[in-house]
Amino acid sequence: MKYAEMTAIELKNVSRDETLVVLPIAAVEQHGPHLPTATDEIICTAVAEQVEQRLKESVLLLPTLWLGASQHHLRWGATLTSRVENYETLLCEICESLLDDGFRRVLILNGHGGNIGPMQISLRRLQVHYRNCQLMAASYWSIAEAEITALMEGECKTVGHACEAETSLVMHLRPELVRKSHIENSDDYQLDMVDGVYLCNDMFQRTSQGATGRPDLATAEKGAEMFSKIVYRVTDVLKSLQKIPFSE
Amino acid sequence: MKYAEMTAIELKNVSRDETLVVLPIAAVEQHGPHLPTATDEIICTAVAEQVEQRLKESVLLLPTLWLGASQHHLRWGATLTSRVENYETLLCEICESLLDDGFRRVLILNGHGGNIGPMQISLRRLQVHYRNCQLMAASYWSIAEAEITALMEGECKTVGHACEAETSLVMHLRPELVRKSHIENSDDYQLDMVDGVYLCNDMFQRTSQGATGRPDLATAEKGAEMFSKIVYRVTDVLKSLQKIPFSE
Amino acid sequence: MKYAEMTAIELKNVSRDETLVVLPIAAVEQHGPHLPTATDEIICTAVAEQVEQRLKESVLLLPTLWLGASQHHLRWGATLTSRVENYETLLCEICESLLDDGFRRVLILNGHGGNIGPMQISLRRLQVHYRNCQLMAASYWSIAEAEITALMEGECKTVGHACEAETSLVMHLRPELVRKSHIENSDDYQLDMVDGVYLCNDMFQRTSQGATGRPDLATAEKGAEMFSKIVYRVTDVLKSLQKIPFSE
Amino acid sequence: MKYAEMTAIELKNVSRDETLVVLPIAAVEQHGPHLPTATDEIICTAVAEQVEQRLKESVLLLPTLWLGASQHHLRWGATLTSRVENYETLLCEICESLLDDGFRRVLILNGHGGNIGPMQISLRRLQVHYRNCQLMAASYWSIAEAEITALMEGECKTVGHACEAETSLVMHLRPELVRKSHIENSDDYQLDMVDGVYLCNDMFQRTSQGATGRPDLATAEKGAEMFSKIVYRVTDVLKSLQKIPFSE
Amino acid sequence: MKYAEMTAIELKNVSRDETLVVLPIAAVEQHGPHLPTATDEIICTAVAEQVEQRLKESVLLLPTLWLGASQHHLRWGATLTSRVENYETLLCEICESLLDDGFRRVLILNGHGGNIGPMQISLRRLQVHYRNCQLMAASYWSIAEAEITALMEGECKTVGHACEAETSLVMHLRPELVRKSHIENSDDYQLDMVDGVYLCNDMFQRTSQGATGRPDLATAEKGAEMFSKIVYRVTDVLKSLQKIPFSE
Amino acid sequence: MKYAEMTAIELKNVSRDETLVVLPIAAVEQHGPHLPTATDEIICTAVAEQVEQRLKESVLLLPTLWLGASQHHLRWGATLTSRVENYETLLCEICESLLDDGFRRVLILNGHGGNIGPMQISLRRLQVHYRNCQLMAASYWSIAEAEITALMEGECKTVGHACEAETSLVMHLRPELVRKSHIENSDDYQLDMVDGVYLCNDMFQRTSQGATGRPDLATAEKGAEMFSKIVYRVTDVLKSLQKIPFSE
Repeated sequence: MKYAEMTAIELKNVSRDETLVVLPIAAVEQHGPHLPTATDEIICTAVAEQVEQRLKESVLLLPTLWLGASQHHLRWGATLTSRVENYETLLCEICESLLDDGFRRVLILNGHGGNIGPMQISLRRLQVHYRNCQLMAASYWSIAEAEITALMEGECKTVGHACEAETSLVMHLRPELVRKSHIENSDDYQLDMVDGVYLCNDMFQRTSQGATGRPDLATAEKGAEMFSKIVYRVTDVLKSLQKIPFSE
Repeated sequence: MKYAEMTAIELKNVSRDETLVVLPIAAVEQHGPHLPTATDEIICTAVAEQVEQRLKESVLLLPTLWLGASQHHLRWGATLTSRVENYETLLCEICESLLDDGFRRVLILNGHGGNIGPMQISLRRLQVHYRNCQLMAASYWSIAEAEITALMEGECKTVGHACEAETSLVMHLRPELVRKSHIENSDDYQLDMVDGVYLCNDMFQRTSQGATGRPDLATAEKGAEMFSKIVYRVTDVLKSLQKIPFSE
Repeated sequence: MKYAEMTAIELKNVSRDETLVVLPIAAVEQHGPHLPTATDEIICTAVAEQVEQRLKESVLLLPTLWLGASQHHLRWGATLTSRVENYETLLCEICESLLDDGFRRVLILNGHGGNIGPMQISLRRLQVHYRNCQLMAASYWSIAEAEITALMEGECKTVGHACEAETSLVMHLRPELVRKSHIENSDDYQLDMVDGVYLCNDMFQRTSQGATGRPDLATAEKGAEMFSKIVYRVTDVLKSLQKIPFSE
Repeated sequence: MKYAEMTAIELKNVSRDETLVVLPIAAVEQHGPHLPTATDEIICTAVAEQVEQRLKESVLLLPTLWLGASQHHLRWGATLTSRVENYETLLCEICESLLDDGFRRVLILNGHGGNIGPMQISLRRLQVHYRNCQLMAASYWSIAEAEITALMEGECKTVGHACEAETSLVMHLRPELVRKSHIENSDDYQLDMVDGVYLCNDMFQRTSQGATGRPDLATAEKGAEMFSKIVYRVTDVLKSLQKIPFSE
Repeated sequence: MKYAEMTAIELKNVSRDETLVVLPIAAVEQHGPHLPTATDEIICTAVAEQVEQRLKESVLLLPTLWLGASQHHLRWGATLTSRVENYETLLCEICESLLDDGFRRVLILNGHGGNIGPMQISLRRLQVHYRNCQLMAASYWSIAEAEITALMEGECKTVGHACEAETSLVMHLRPELVRKSHIENSDDYQLDMVDGVYLCNDMFQRTSQGATGRPDLATAEKGAEMFSKIVYRVTDVLKSLQKIPFSE
Repeated sequence: MKYAEMTAIELKNVSRDETLVVLPIAAVEQHGPHLPTATDEIICTAVAEQVEQRLKESVLLLPTLWLGASQHHLRWGATLTSRVENYETLLCEICESLLDDGFRRVLILNGHGGNIGPMQISLRRLQVHYRNCQLMAASYWSIAEAEITALMEGECKTVGHACEAETSLVMHLRPELVRKSHIENSDDYQLDMVDGVYLCNDMFQRTSQGATGRPDLATAEKGAEMFSKIVYRVTDVLKSLQKIPFSE
């Protein structure tokens, strides 16, 4: 079910206890020299829509919130963002609209690394007031971690920024938006976790071009396979989320 | 130009002084028994994209912010919203991302009545800090007021909510999303301005079904003509906005 | 009835359902080279007090909040202001004091253009919590629009800033405060609505001296007639507001 | 000088370094069974205006902010208030308007006990940003403590609430507003400082009728003498404040 | 009882109505050339712990919040602080944790002058929501004023900053932390209350070395006697606070 | 170096570029039936102090902020907390005090799981304003992950809540505070990450007694060894943090 395409009457008839409401969140921010700013939005929306296709009866999909918490990209320009603390509030408010309307299973499905912290915090802020609801959050790559890792050829086996995985996925989903001639090996980036310590640097400090990993290893074929496996795995996990019993 | 489809390098090359950046804002909220919740988003995005097609060189179009200030619809259910004061902050932040990146002409192009107040306030909050930029806001119907009025057959000649105009426009743009059998004359609604006094009631108090005006007079043909005239007029006006000189 | 002059016991005996509580709001800000900073406060208070004289039994008049949302005048100096978002909060709080004390009909009566946005937003913020109360707001000129227009001789037929209307009214109400020798034709100002687009400039950008319209056409006689007609009309409309039925 | 009666040009010519800007703040809140809600506003404004008369050249008087921090009176009804934390912000904003306009000596002159905390906090919030200005605050009774004490006949020698002092002062300033038949001995109130400990109770808990002290000992004559001595003393002290050297 | 050393089960068994919960608050900020930054924390904790030793059955002692509202010391460096308005919120939150857990007698026991305003404001913010609880605040020196005054030899008879009293107390409690060779007569400081007027200057403006009064008159013996008398007096007063009846 | 024990002059002489300032943060919250509420504070402070002993020249240790973000424990009682969004602000403010005083290497050293999100967010909020400083955060267990895992005998190999690790550590550090008779196998708790999805439940929902893992396997000997290895590893890593070059 797609929230945006339904009427108020139709939405009133949706089961509050059983339906899993999914809010995709992403970012519109610089993605290196070769990917469009909407990269995260493109991938996250595509995953969410494919999953909804497979779980039409039980998933209620919201439109993707393209805005993300992207202040750490600002110095590269080409970045739209909310302050991280206000982004928490924004997510709280969208969820409150749903929870106050009676929905009890809400999943934030994320496509931008910078959103992980604020999306988890926003659920903690909500949980105090909606204890008998199941508030959930995940990035597509944390759900499909094994599937993605298996397909990565570069040294880094997880989704970074404008990296092998993201580049492959956009090559598959929107090939015309990839500037292939600008793709470069970007594995000169710096991690933000070293020896268990979080080093809070922005992407201007951590990367030389605004990208990480090995976009040069990206292919549309890899993107197609990765996408299909992500969709399969996310569908599977979302199905299981609908069976979690509520606790008070 | 479409912001979301461009890379950081391409965006860096866009003229900051001449380009008109357009941020479409809408709502996902109940639209009576016959229209989808995304009505405002559908219309506003369609207008914005058509205008961008006609002004490719000079307009930089952002993706539509589908979230609106819709608390006054909450009691009808099927409504996603931000608190009105936080919505101001949200608009400020998106604009700040642009203004801090050097863009000097920003237009918020609105498709939801409840956004007018907060969008104007958000520009006032910004103006204090960005005095040498041209901050602008308009609803598509305030720009194309004459064109719309000329086509309305019901007593009310302006765009209301799930009304003759909006219904016609969705019939034209997304006919499959209109539940024709649920369309009813809704001119039993109450105005929020009486004798120059603003009466602050919510839509549950002001309407009997969540709609206003005469959706029963809507036709796809009227919608097509209205849409084409709106696009023509908005294109025209946006062209003129690019020539306004900056003042300090 | 004047709130400020009554005791707690007397106020306890006032009917919560029938009484119309009126909160006048204004501004103390630069008013061009010829008018005192308190211009809006002088006019708005005079109107409110005359109306209360005529509706002693049914109107409960609060003292005038002289502070306004006047940041757009700051660059002319001689301006006291609250930030626009905090001004909303301030109005909410005064109204909450009344609503929590049981009063159910509250009207903000405004005398400063810059307050219109925040006063309407403040009512929207309140309405969510006080749905069974009638929250209202109006500027004296929006109520008496026809009467004022009929008396204006300059091209602009509505109340601007330190304009023909305001200058005439202060000439009538506080003639000793008008610096006649400094009055000049000010119709070189720029509108903030052009082709349906809101252009957010401050008064330093929009006017050459901090005033608009034709103060040079102002006379005390015009002011006297205008004032009397405004009072008559506002009295009339306020009487009708007391009969609006409450809705849940 | 009265800020409200001056034009922008006249205010521009006022010395920023020498002039003492005075912002009177008060309250409109229940004042027991015998005094009007505006009691604090009446007294504080009268003092401020008399002082300005005596220091016309050197004092720039703002209109009185009648709103106070009065939440602790709310349960008696008949009380308008701002939340205490927002009241701090409100005072900051009015002062910022002055400080950003170049004025360097600002005194908040207070007439309501509940304002003391927030007015001092507001200056501390401002001081961080305006270190080379002299930010000052005083209640009229803290300046004229000795004079007031000397005239009090009841056991309590300081200004309380609707007490011997306030009742006498209103008897002098606005005799028609005192309901003499409702005056009662109110010395059954509880202090909020006991053994050096602040006991945070509201006025509904601390008083039996919303008043403190011995209003039954009040006379207009006492009020006249007290008022005259307060004005004399405040004038004297304000004169000295203009000579305090600025420090960086 | 010490909150920090108890388990949840043990804390559940503590009487909510009778127990006095004590939250010590202090500061870590510059204390002149001779005292450690933790001076206020050292003294306040020592007092609180000694009192708890004497009232084990009836007092529930929290750990000391070492952070204070110390912005006015920032220009001396060596100062950790919260903004004054956020410090209010912080105190509210700790108290709310206790009040929502059922405790009804809460005392903030303060050891830093700059905390007095915000701690009282924080209780006012709380009192609106917890009217049937006894919310209290005191500085150790306001409780033991007479005892301290009797022992001071310098002209100033009250506790200042890094002064005769504080220096003596640290000489007694943590002698190894006093840099004796840096102690100097500091009675060249400026008061912040002159003629009943609060002059809001920071400590960089008010002192020549970040200290006040006569630290040169401090001795460990004086500190020992003072400490013992403070403990005795605070113990006495806290005992009496447990007998105050609750009011609604 | 210990910040709290130093004077302003001594702190002024500390190298801003080389010194690593360490702010330990913890919690005072329910820790099951057998551990004191201060468990996190006890462990984190002990680690921090031991590390400081080993790196006296290069580490500047602040006192431990015992307050944590512990709302998810509130329903167990015996919990002091700040709201998660305000906790971010609190951490920002303490760090700002340091950064504005010139220090350029700040590490938040954490001892409470619920603080991880807000501490990382707080650094992101700060990073925008302090880009040329190195802002860092770590929990002691993320630094010493391998060492801790190697010593855990239960199925769960990481630090949970009142678990095998925490119980062992308190048995070593403060044996008198462990209620041994109340220790129970607690491995019936629910994880908050399942299949890559964050399930936001509070500890009342996730545990049967407020504890996780296998506290019944805890021993003082294990605690001693674990503590010693943690201290060794944290010392090692902190040494390396001082060599990270600054980037702009």
